[in-house]
Amino acid sequence: MAGESHNLILGIDIGGTSLRLALAQSAKRVISRRKVTSPADEEPRVMVDTISRLAGELLAEARGGSLAAVGVSAPGPVDSKSGTLMDPPNLSRFHTVPLRDLLRRELSAPVALENDANAAALAEHRMGSGREVQDMVYVTISTGIGGGLIADGRLISGARGGAGEIGHITIDVNGPPCGCGKNGCWEAMASGTAINKELVRRVRAGEDSVLAESVRRAPGLVDARAVHEAAFQGDQLSNDILDKIALYTGIGLGSVVNVLNPELVVVGGGLTRIGDRILRPAFDICRQQIFPLHNKGLRLEVSRMGDEGPLLGALVLAAELREGCCPVPEVSRD
Amino acid sequence: MAGESHNLILGIDIGGTSLRLALAQSAKRVISRRKVTSPADEEPRVMVDTISRLAGELLAEARGGSLAAVGVSAPGPVDSKSGTLMDPPNLSRFHTVPLRDLLRRELSAPVALENDANAAALAEHRMGSGREVQDMVYVTISTGIGGGLIADGRLISGARGGAGEIGHITIDVNGPPCGCGKNGCWEAMASGTAINKELVRRVRAGEDSVLAESVRRAPGLVDARAVHEAAFQGDQLSNDILDKIALYTGIGLGSVVNVLNPELVVVGGGLTRIGDRILRPAFDICRQQIFPLHNKGLRLEVSRMGDEGPLLGALVLAAELREGCCPVPEVSRD
Repeated sequence: MAGESHNLILGIDIGGTSLRLALAQSAKRVISRRKVTSPADEEPRVMVDTISRLAGELLAEARGGSLAAVGVSAPGPVDSKSGTLMDPPNLSRFHTVPLRDLLRRELSAPVALENDANAAALAEHRMGSGREVQDMVYVTISTGIGGGLIADGRLISGARGGAGEIGHITIDVNGPPCGCGKNGCWEAMASGTAINKELVRRVRAGEDSVLAESVRRAPGLVDARAVHEAAFQGDQLSNDILDKIALYTGIGLGSVVNVLNPELVVVGGGLTRIGDRILRPAFDICRQQIFPLHNKGLRLEVSRMGDEGPLLGALVLAAELREGCCPVPEVSRD
Repeated sequence: MAGESHNLILGIDIGGTSLRLALAQSAKRVISRRKVTSPADEEPRVMVDTISRLAGELLAEARGGSLAAVGVSAPGPVDSKSGTLMDPPNLSRFHTVPLRDLLRRELSAPVALENDANAAALAEHRMGSGREVQDMVYVTISTGIGGGLIADGRLISGARGGAGEIGHITIDVNGPPCGCGKNGCWEAMASGTAINKELVRRVRAGEDSVLAESVRRAPGLVDARAVHEAAFQGDQLSNDILDKIALYTGIGLGSVVNVLNPELVVVGGGLTRIGDRILRPAFDICRQQIFPLHNKGLRLEVSRMGDEGPLLGALVLAAELREGCCPVPEVSRD
């Protein structure tokens, strides 16, 4: 036990709301944790100092343990090759921040950094529904839509760590504008934000709904949960909107499955909290969208990790960094 | 030289039009070739017998050489894990054909099988524009649209070899029907077939064009080249159509880049023969569609391999099978 404590790993999940840390012997053997309000609106220095202080506390509690490796999950876009955050919308004062190097210096240990969807995908693959699977896609649907891709058991990062931006597949060339600057992205059509926008637009266009008064009072606050509740009570407009969201979700999932032919798709994120109303029809539509070859053996599931995915993924990153596993192989070129 | 000839590889490109074979020492050192009309409308047995006879001729010419490995490129869908063709539309009497096993028995050598887009992607990566690149996408645009994906230097096959069906990303939920059964696929919007269909539809709707008479006489024969020619001569309808095709091509490419963050996209296939008229604006549109992170260092290029890609890819498959290279690594699960 004393020997092991010199070889600890630290997982860090930087969120827009919470900052979480876990000190562990392995991704499955967590020693202690911290969760604080994320200093998301402060300068990067405050984030790094907060992490450093909390890590110091966790290590002190572990009585003389030392860090072998650190894994970090952060809001995208993340250039995981250079370890840099690139203007993440959820961290307003972070522009181009070399977070990996900053934390490496501060914590005196090697650091691996991925965006939160990639981290959650790793967690699902190594410890969750994807344990027996070589090819899977993790999809997170909340205010935005993102993803993490696993092929042949390995995370697909892309040239600069930007792979997995599946929410920015165009699914309607004539669709509404997306935060990314183009039109009709899956995210613009079927995220939590899209549900709110569609409701507000249609109420303002004069459609009747039990939510009309709430929309007039505070349009930004009527969220997917409220629409789900109203739909359950029989509100026609809310049901229309959720039917469309389910359709677009199925179409987005189908596109991703056609591109990657995974054995498993795991859907996580806040929108899964309103459960079957969207995902059950969406999964059916997805299966209608794809080739028989892609349907064969395909599992479509809801994540069981809740909010824990990115933190567990950060621990997996740290554990694999410590073990020096999964290096990029040299490619023979005949 | 005599020693080497006992260790030969054979590449086979099964097309809907031609059947090509190349006997080689390596993917770059071809000894001899055959090209015949493809028995695409015959039973699978005829294809296997034809391949066997041609392979025998090539080996006889090589004076006593023997086969160490065989690579095959075939029209998709191909289940590359089990080595099976799955109802390829271009081989009308092939249903579920265990081609890898049939050829292994016939040629007494190990066989690797991929669909033609994956084979061409391998060729581009190992011997073409992608030689220095770890993450790339090969896109083929002709009567249909397909792709082959390379991540970290490895072909992404997916659970059953069906990865890369990028032509079946939905880009317009309200778009025209696609051969695959759904609506508004990239292939239904921007393939050679889509150009023909759009022209026929709009001429029949009464729009004026220098191609109107040809459309009335033989609608199926007015191909992308004819539309390109008419556009060049100033035909407004043809120019409109090509502008839209360029837009959809850019949108499709942008979606794929956002998902995979490649360093290089190589576009091949018949539509590249009409050159810059579509691809130059399409590449510009693609760059407008993607994140700054994805644009950084991204190259968008036209393939220089012409029709040779799948055959060269088949040779690469054979060479790598012979060398036992690129095995799927065991994944550590902490």
